[in-house]
Formats: sequence, structure tokens, C-alpha cells
Amino acid sequence: MSERKRRRSEAAAPVASISDGSTSKKPRKQDSHAQGLRKHLKSDAEILASIREMYEASRSEVSSSKAVSLSDLNLSSACREVSDRDVASVQVAIERTVLAVARSILAGSGFSFDVPSRAASNQLYVPEIDRIVLRDKSSSRPFASLSTVRKATVTARVLSLVYAVLRRDIHITKRDLFYTDVKLFQDQSQSDAVLDDVSCMLGCTRSSLHVVASEKGVVVGRLVFTDDGDRIDCTKMGIGGKAIPPNIDRVGNLESDALFILLVEKDAAFMRLAEDRFYNRFPCIIVTAKGQPDVATRLFLKRMKTELKLPVLALVDSDPYGLKILSVYMCGSKNMSYDSSNLTTPDIKWLGVRPSDLDKYKVPEQCRLPMTDQDVKAGKDLLEEDFVKKNEGWVKELEIMVKTRQKAEIQALSSFGFQYLSEVYLPLKLQQRDWL
Amino acid sequence: MSERKRRRSEAAAPVASISDGSTSKKPRKQDSHAQGLRKHLKSDAEILASIREMYEASRSEVSSSKAVSLSDLNLSSACREVSDRDVASVQVAIERTVLAVARSILAGSGFSFDVPSRAASNQLYVPEIDRIVLRDKSSSRPFASLSTVRKATVTARVLSLVYAVLRRDIHITKRDLFYTDVKLFQDQSQSDAVLDDVSCMLGCTRSSLHVVASEKGVVVGRLVFTDDGDRIDCTKMGIGGKAIPPNIDRVGNLESDALFILLVEKDAAFMRLAEDRFYNRFPCIIVTAKGQPDVATRLFLKRMKTELKLPVLALVDSDPYGLKILSVYMCGSKNMSYDSSNLTTPDIKWLGVRPSDLDKYKVPEQCRLPMTDQDVKAGKDLLEEDFVKKNEGWVKELEIMVKTRQKAEIQALSSFGFQYLSEVYLPLKLQQRDWL
Repeated sequence: MSERKRRRSEAAAPVASISDGSTSKKPRKQDSHAQGLRKHLKSDAEILASIREMYEASRSEVSSSKAVSLSDLNLSSACREVSDRDVASVQVAIERTVLAVARSILAGSGFSFDVPSRAASNQLYVPEIDRIVLRDKSSSRPFASLSTVRKATVTARVLSLVYAVLRRDIHITKRDLFYTDVKLFQDQSQSDAVLDDVSCMLGCTRSSLHVVASEKGVVVGRLVFTDDGDRIDCTKMGIGGKAIPPNIDRVGNLESDALFILLVEKDAAFMRLAEDRFYNRFPCIIVTAKGQPDVATRLFLKRMKTELKLPVLALVDSDPYGLKILSVYMCGSKNMSYDSSNLTTPDIKWLGVRPSDLDKYKVPEQCRLPMTDQDVKAGKDLLEEDFVKKNEGWVKELEIMVKTRQKAEIQALSSFGFQYLSEVYLPLKLQQRDWL
Repeated sequence: MSERKRRRSEAAAPVASISDGSTSKKPRKQDSHAQGLRKHLKSDAEILASIREMYEASRSEVSSSKAVSLSDLNLSSACREVSDRDVASVQVAIERTVLAVARSILAGSGFSFDVPSRAASNQLYVPEIDRIVLRDKSSSRPFASLSTVRKATVTARVLSLVYAVLRRDIHITKRDLFYTDVKLFQDQSQSDAVLDDVSCMLGCTRSSLHVVASEKGVVVGRLVFTDDGDRIDCTKMGIGGKAIPPNIDRVGNLESDALFILLVEKDAAFMRLAEDRFYNRFPCIIVTAKGQPDVATRLFLKRMKTELKLPVLALVDSDPYGLKILSVYMCGSKNMSYDSSNLTTPDIKWLGVRPSDLDKYKVPEQCRLPMTDQDVKAGKDLLEEDFVKKNEGWVKELEIMVKTRQKAEIQALSSFGFQYLSEVYLPLKLQQRDWL
């Protein structure tokens, strides 16, 4: 073990000359460029000082600027948001809902649910909090109506199923829920939709209902937490990392001595950083959802950012899709806007790979890919999005992307040597505070 | 914590009546059926005895029947197989290959590689070992030929890149490899194909070249192992489980007091079993690749089965796709036949969900899905496969599937209650030794 680690670090010095296995004496142009950038690297202590400054700035920002909430904006009555609630209080909410229905029947007004509208017309982007939220419009769902009898029945059934799940204090998937009454639900999209309705009705998150999505995220680095009571030390999770649990309410006791969270789009980059134990050189927590962010990873990131008060730096591909992924982490997706406050992590910094990096770090032409017309359209669409427009730096970067019609993956940095990402690119970025 | 666990087990008793949250007094037909099957469950001690018998049988089988290898069949000269090799010996193999080329040049015979053929015509299914292997045909890849100059150059480059990776003792992904010389490789499929060639040439697995695929598998249960030197106790990995590492050569020191390995197709079932800590009631290791098996999970399963000598029971959907997944674990995929001995885990038992279970466990009609024509064709194709034909029980099950034209997911068992899988179905299966 120690032999291997020694060998690895010995080999680290002449990276540019051996990293590509080139045996010719004449260094390739890429190598000499990588060598050149390496010269700009200061000592780790100096880079750490730069990171620490960001960390302090981020903490003081958190403590000085009170987080703006809907009630600060006098919007809490006009807008609806759900929150995490414990098992007992969700059970009480269900009981109240059912009692209200019973009272309505006894009063001769019939069986009916009051269901918040989740339609696009009822959604609102609130710039002050930089999220999409739901307005408070709601509609009645009576049993004694041809158009709503089915939905009212499904709602009653989902309420009773969720109540049973909570009573046993277990978690199930949306698929499990669907299969308990296929005859009634007919199609999973129907039980899924009503599940979201129930979330809104009860004012709690879907996680609080104990109905979870499958997870695909992994985490390594300077983080200790408990997963269902088991203590997990993420510095001791090897290269594979710890799978992020599907049920965030069983996650607790987060502790960390990290200075930042590094959010990585792809698992190849995650593996590189995990194997190089990047988090030991620059104390951080490394997390990836392996592509499109899933709900479990979004909840986990939010939780880390909120409880540990750490700045989040993102490493994504330099293409519209990379930025789209950032937007999902930051602003949420439209069809879960009622839960945006729990799912979104504001203030993520775009570390790289940015369109301007391609020239700055002299990524060879053959490692850049031409953007398709569809890519360019996606880029232009992003330029119209509020969350991009409010960040001048991002607009400039996107304009470069659309103008040059070039994109590049994180993996393109491998052209300078396999460990260029962890040994040169990221340390240099951190040293120069090169994030937006 | 203990409060929660107590509540969970208290609630466990009247499962059928509350599991679906039904509040009506009259039990649904499904519930009374689940209640009926529950009555057949013996004590855990008796079920454990049944499992232990399987475990002992499997161990004695392993020790008595010497594993048949290609050399036992006098096929070792006619067939080619690769094996796991350590860094130093792969480096030596590369040096020898390059020296042979140099000698050939000095002798006036020119620059040329001798590359094993991986074409379908060179593949052979060997029934005695139940795997597809590669015959020993190989062809010359001279530099001084218009048709092979490109491939010869790519081969030289890949050899030199792999050598550099091994020298640093790091791991990279196929995508990293491609990006180190996009100009030469042009397309990732080209560097991928030559990488497989290099594996065959050097007689070592792709893992030994330190080029890894991304992982998506997770594991929980009675297993302790080291991932890159970190000790991982899989009974303390919460509900999320431990992500299976992409690089199997960093996995070591496997220890277990489990009696079997439970291979699960879907992550929803994995989550159910992890949350219920099924492995504490019936000592086992639970593993899933979340759908189509990836190379890392296949290597990990093989490693567990070989080193721990545990029987493997599979829980897959009752459809042709579920059986297809079993076949990938057991017999491998055709395009990696040169590595079949390392990637395949023979003798996996089909525990469920089997076509005959649908009636046996009275899975309600509405939870079964009709098979499409394509499904039926896939089922009929499977009936022609050697690995199915040699197992009479499997043939019968497949015939039922094709005849009834019905399929069902593991999740269909939720119709009897969310914990029916972990509390009734699996214990009953184990008690009755109901695997094929």
C-alpha cells in the first residue's frame, strides 16, 4: 500500500513528459504547454490560503445576509411551499384532511378534496429568492362529479397508502406505490401525479411522505454522516465512494472540516479525484450524480450546503447541457416547483470547464467538439433564462460558447496527461480564484 | 433510532391488514392470500437450517468437483484466455512486445504486431465450462501496409499510454484514453477496440491494464473488504449501501459470515432489503447493478463467489430481460469473450420472480403485464440458448412465460404489502429451497 502510494507520488513530478507515454525525445506541443501552466502553480499552502478566503467569505455572507424567504417578501400567503416534516406531523396532517372530508360529508356538502393547482399558470419565478414557486390557487376535487370521481378516489387511496407507510416507518419507491393497486391507478403516471398533489395538500415534501426516488449519486471526501444510524466516514470510502442514500430523512449528524464542496458532473472525473485523494490535498467533499441530477443527490447537496455552510464549486462539461445540469441543482425543475426550497442549492459557483478555459488552457483543437445546431439553440435558449441573465460572467461565457460553436468535455483535459485535472487544472483554478 | 426500529417491528405483525392502508373492515382478496402464505412460514431458525444446507452443499461441491479449465479439456493451446496480472508483469509483457517489434525491424522483417482475432468466427462456446471463449487464431498487423498502418500506429500508441498509466499506478477510463490523442484515434470506438486487442495480445484482463469502466453497482450486507486500503464494513453502510469500486484490483481482503449472495436486478428491491436489514435476519450479501450489469459489478460478484465460496441466488423480473441479465452474469457477453473466465460467475440459482411464481403466489392479474410480440420473441430466442437448454427447470419456466404471455416485475409483489418481499416471499422461498 505505502509502496504504491510512494510510487504514485514519485511518478507525479515529470507528468508532462510521461503522462502520455510518449517515448520520443521531442516533447509534444501539448506537453510543453502543460509544463508551462504547471510552472504557474504556487505551493499548496498558498493555494489553501486562497481557498480559505473563499470559505470565510462564503460563511460571513451566510451569517450577515439573512436568507430571504417567501414571508420576507410578503408572498407567503400568495405562494405555497412545502417543507420537510416528521412522521408524526405528516400523519396528523393526513388525519386532519380525512376528518375535514368526513365533516363535509356529515354537513351534507359531500366528499371532496381541496387540491392545490400545480399547473404552469400557477407557477411563479421569484427573482429575490431565485427559484420557481407555486402560487396558492387551488381547486376542489369532488367525488360526486363525473370529471373528478376517479382522481378523488385515487387521492383517497394514495393518502391511505402513505399513511400505512408512515405508520410502519419504512420507505417505498413510486413504483411500489403504483403496484399496490394497479387496477385503480392503471398507469404509474397517475399515481405519481396524485402523489405530488398529496405532497402539496399536506404541505410537506415527497421525502416526508417516505416515497423516494432511486439514487445514483456518490460522495467521497472530508465528510462524516450517519446513514440510517450507521456512521459513514467518506475519507475512508476508497475509490468507489459512498452511495448517496435514497431517503434523506435517514441522513444525519453531518460533520466536516472541508473548505468547499466540489460538484462534479461525470463519474470519470469523480474517479480521478477519488483515486488521487484530491480531498486530502485540498480539504473538500466531492459529489456526483453521474449526469442528470437525481432527487436524492439534489437533497443531499442542499443538506450539506445548508448544514455545513460550505461554498459549492461546480465542474461540468463546457456545453449547454453542463449548464443545464447546474440550473437543475440551483433553480430546480418546473414540475417540482412546489418543493423548490428543499431541492435547490443557491449560489453554486461555475468553476469549469468554461468556454473561455478552452483557449486559456490551450485545449487542443482536436479535443474540442463542434456544436450541433441543436446545441447552439440550447445555448441561445439558456441566454434567455433568468438564472443566467443575472450573472454577467455566465452570459459572457455562454456568448463565447455560442459564438465559437465549440464544446468540450471535462475529459478533454486528459490530453495533457491523465492527472492534469487533479494536479494542474483544479489547483490552478483554486489558486487564481477562477470561478464565476 | 431504537424507537423507530421498535415501531417498525411492532407494525410488522398485522402486515396484511395494514400494509395497503385499507381501512375497510372486509379484507381485500389479496390481503387474505398474503395472510395465508404467511401462515406457511416456519421459524427463522428452521429457515436458516434450510439456507445452511444449501451453503454446505455449495461448498462441498466446490471442493469436490475440481473446476474444469481449458487446460483440463486440452483446449489451452487451441483457445486463448486472459487473466488478471499485476502491474509489474503487465509492464514486462509490454516491454517484451516492443522488444520483439524492435528485433523484427533489426532483422529486416519490419514493424509488425501479432494480434489475436476477436471476430465471431474465432469464438467458441465450450459446454464443459459453460462459457464463450476465443480460439487462438491471430493475424499480423504490419506498419508497412496501407490496410493496417493506421491500426498498427494506434496499437503502438495505446501500448505506450497503458505503459505510462501502469508506471504511475493510476487508473483511467476508456474516455480518458481516447482524449489523450483524439487526432490519432478519431473516434472512441477505435481506441476501445484496440484496447481490447492489447488485452488479448498481452494475455491480461482490461482491469490489469488499469483502464476501467464506470461503476453503478452497490452492495450491502455481511461483507467486509478493503477499497484502495480503506476497510469497508457493508453491514454499516446504511440504506444507500457502498458503491462498488470501478477498479477491482484495488479491492482486497474479502471476509464474510454470510451464507449466500443475493443478486438483485433492480434498486427498488435493493432498497427494500437494505432498509429492512434483511441480511441481519438471514446472513447474506445483497448486490445490485441497477439493471444491465456493468463490468465492475460482474467482476465484484465473481470475486465474492470465488473467494468466499458462497452460493448466489438471483432475484430478477419475471420477463425475458430478467433472464438475459442472468445470462450476462453467468456466461458473459460475446464481445468480451476473451475475458469470459474473469467476468462470469457460473452456477447462479434463479430464485425468483419466476413465471410459475405468478400463480403460486397468486400475483393479482392487474399486476401482471402482457408480453409484447417482441418480448415473446426474446423468450423464444432464449429457449434456443445453450445456457438455458442445459437447465431443465429454466426451460419449463420459460415455456410457461411464453405460453401465458405474461410478465411481472419484482415490484409486483408490493401488491401484497410493501414488505411482503422481505417478510414473506423471500423467507418462504428460502425455507422451501425454491430455486432452480
